[in-house]
Amino acid sequence: MPGTDKSDLHPLFHPESIALVGVPRGFKAQTLFLLGLKDQDFKGPIYPVHPQADEIHGLKAYPRITDIPGPLDQVIILTPADTVGEIIDQCAKKKVKAVVIYSSGFGETGDEEGQRREEKLRQAARKGGFRILGPNCMGIFSPASGLAFFPGMPKTPGKVGFLSQSGSISNLFTSTCAGRNIFFRHVVSCGNSSDIDLPELIDYMGMDDEVKVICAYCEGVKDGKALKEALRDVSGKKPLIMWKVGDTGSGKRAAASHTGSLSGREEIWKALFRQYGVIEVSDIEEMLDALTAFYYLPLETEGRVVILSGPGGPAVSAADAAERAGLKLAALEDETKEKLRSIIPATGTSVRNPVDVGLAASFDLKQYLDSIEIIAGDTNVDAIVVIGGGLTPDANKLYVKEFARLGRETGKALIAIAYPGFQEESSMAGPLQESGIPVFPTPERALRAYAKILK
Amino acid sequence: MPGTDKSDLHPLFHPESIALVGVPRGFKAQTLFLLGLKDQDFKGPIYPVHPQADEIHGLKAYPRITDIPGPLDQVIILTPADTVGEIIDQCAKKKVKAVVIYSSGFGETGDEEGQRREEKLRQAARKGGFRILGPNCMGIFSPASGLAFFPGMPKTPGKVGFLSQSGSISNLFTSTCAGRNIFFRHVVSCGNSSDIDLPELIDYMGMDDEVKVICAYCEGVKDGKALKEALRDVSGKKPLIMWKVGDTGSGKRAAASHTGSLSGREEIWKALFRQYGVIEVSDIEEMLDALTAFYYLPLETEGRVVILSGPGGPAVSAADAAERAGLKLAALEDETKEKLRSIIPATGTSVRNPVDVGLAASFDLKQYLDSIEIIAGDTNVDAIVVIGGGLTPDANKLYVKEFARLGRETGKALIAIAYPGFQEESSMAGPLQESGIPVFPTPERALRAYAKILK
Repeated sequence: MPGTDKSDLHPLFHPESIALVGVPRGFKAQTLFLLGLKDQDFKGPIYPVHPQADEIHGLKAYPRITDIPGPLDQVIILTPADTVGEIIDQCAKKKVKAVVIYSSGFGETGDEEGQRREEKLRQAARKGGFRILGPNCMGIFSPASGLAFFPGMPKTPGKVGFLSQSGSISNLFTSTCAGRNIFFRHVVSCGNSSDIDLPELIDYMGMDDEVKVICAYCEGVKDGKALKEALRDVSGKKPLIMWKVGDTGSGKRAAASHTGSLSGREEIWKALFRQYGVIEVSDIEEMLDALTAFYYLPLETEGRVVILSGPGGPAVSAADAAERAGLKLAALEDETKEKLRSIIPATGTSVRNPVDVGLAASFDLKQYLDSIEIIAGDTNVDAIVVIGGGLTPDANKLYVKEFARLGRETGKALIAIAYPGFQEESSMAGPLQESGIPVFPTPERALRAYAKILK
Repeated sequence: MPGTDKSDLHPLFHPESIALVGVPRGFKAQTLFLLGLKDQDFKGPIYPVHPQADEIHGLKAYPRITDIPGPLDQVIILTPADTVGEIIDQCAKKKVKAVVIYSSGFGETGDEEGQRREEKLRQAARKGGFRILGPNCMGIFSPASGLAFFPGMPKTPGKVGFLSQSGSISNLFTSTCAGRNIFFRHVVSCGNSSDIDLPELIDYMGMDDEVKVICAYCEGVKDGKALKEALRDVSGKKPLIMWKVGDTGSGKRAAASHTGSLSGREEIWKALFRQYGVIEVSDIEEMLDALTAFYYLPLETEGRVVILSGPGGPAVSAADAAERAGLKLAALEDETKEKLRSIIPATGTSVRNPVDVGLAASFDLKQYLDSIEIIAGDTNVDAIVVIGGGLTPDANKLYVKEFARLGRETGKALIAIAYPGFQEESSMAGPLQESGIPVFPTPERALRAYAKILK
């Protein structure tokens, strides 16, 4: 298998120099791309290109791409659609290796003019021997390479590859994941995918050993055969979670005007996903939940789960959710039940799975912790979903520390639930996640996500 | 139709005096019930009952219920199961009208002793002419009546009646709803439902004119015929949203050990729900979303919806979600499209539904507001789901004010989306909700909830 440094796409993900065309002297939306690179501390030279300016935001500017001294890996184009063709010609002359086109007004307009423009880009790239990401895209966010859409994005490099035809979803999902302590190796917004399309990106993520999980938002692909091959190649190598939209009539029309995508027939996609074990999700929350499970939890498991709860109602609903998602509640050994009986109150509780430690445990968090330890010692158990926590941030401090220790020492998959707006999230969810314990907003969502690992 | 003041349950929801048995002199979980009543400023006398104490938390205490002077409407029992029988006998002697039993150790234990105890309670109530809520319950939260489970619960009276066999879900849901500016007339935790069961409570909520929407968490009922009659009577009068758990084998076992409930066959429940137009939900988020729709939005509507978005990806997925939920995207009039075209940029946007105002609108929020106004003027439109907002709390301030004005003046249902952890929720969601605009975390959830109104 070739390393990613041999790939055509290497200069897109690891450029040593970047030129930006279309950053104004003042402050406009386009300025954010320049500030994003500076904010991520991009190591190579950054060259703003501007017809008049000598300097832009502290960097020496050049009138044309061809005026830039030395070799140039990547160009980011932020100018209006009708100016892009000429800039592309300069890229060819300068022998740049990768071009990212933010500009819209191409295939997604649905008119002939736009489609002709996009076709010309494709031809120019082929002829000039460089690759194009976009148009109508946000480019690449990659903390390890110093690339970002905007300033203020996470600085922590991670192990997820996220591919998206939607720029806003790239940005939104990156930010949402940071709240769950999930970080990215590369996030790619590919927009109209005129040249580089999803299949090639999936392939690249498959080859990059730093990428452990791939996630994708997809409105459609141009080459079904290439997609099939990419799914086949990545299948079994690392998990691929996919959010495919444009399946309904309304969705198809919206996808066409958003990125000019032909979204294809739903049943063909579903068959492909089944064949290659792609994990399918249908909205951003489900994608976040699935990624959380694959990011935090061991993938080799029989999935025998225990629900451990103080509040009784959520445990009943969680039991339903587990069974509906295809999980089996673990049958606890008699010894485990006896041990549990010796530490939790006799009434208002249950030592069967779901294990109900009763409401008093909220006042005495040791009951939760001791119960986790007892259940984790049961050979029938792979995972424990814990619905509970303290009533104050202070009470949670010690709880979280001990919970994290049990996560490390017991070798079982521990999953915590923190209902938003109810439990002290900041005092529980944050520290638990930092210790490698995944936290979900409801047990139903946790169990649905956990079940996806087994499939 | 009889007023609720003629109902047997009136002294449960509107007691003029309350005695609490089992509040300790120090501070324990039971103390919270007393503090809850004080916190809600309960208007009548509160009598702690304690064998030795003269005073408990500043209130004069009495050794026995029969020692309390004057008439007594309600008794809340917080003592261990084996002491409850004798206290119930005193209640009969004192001619109290309603008894709330927090204590567990009855039918939910699954053993004969527990079931015998619970049967005895039922008989004592019937003989003594009073009604029992519980055992194994948290009682009633009702700001208008000064009743609460705990201190610190919302003080604002509202228009929702929430019925729950689970105490923790009563508490959790109340708190979660406060975050969406949704408030309650009555919240009832009925636990084992030994005497007062869900059907009678649904009936009472149907009769209470202050209750506009009924919501229920249900593990099972004892009398199927009574449920059927209650659903029939309330059907068409006000919406009833129901979260029925215990449908799977694991869920049934969990329900039995939680509140001793027999959860019944899933298909029978589903048939009942269909017959009487009950809105079915399957977790706390879906219940919250459905309630948000019924609480904020007009119920008489054809549901012709427009998706108005700055980010393109979420709009595509929203279009799919709308169609899947059975909604039709409104077909905009030509005049509307022309007007939209005149105010939004030519590229990277769309004037078809979903209307894509492009990313620039995040910098110029007037484009959102003007678009809302134009779309609201279209006679083909009932509702507009707006995916957008400003980049800073300051920018959102004016946006929210104008958004709320359009909600009032256009007469159309406006729905806002604020992705958690992404948009400045506190600067957008809070103020919008206070102005009567419902806010959802994703467009998919908003559209699924809105579709429920139509069914």
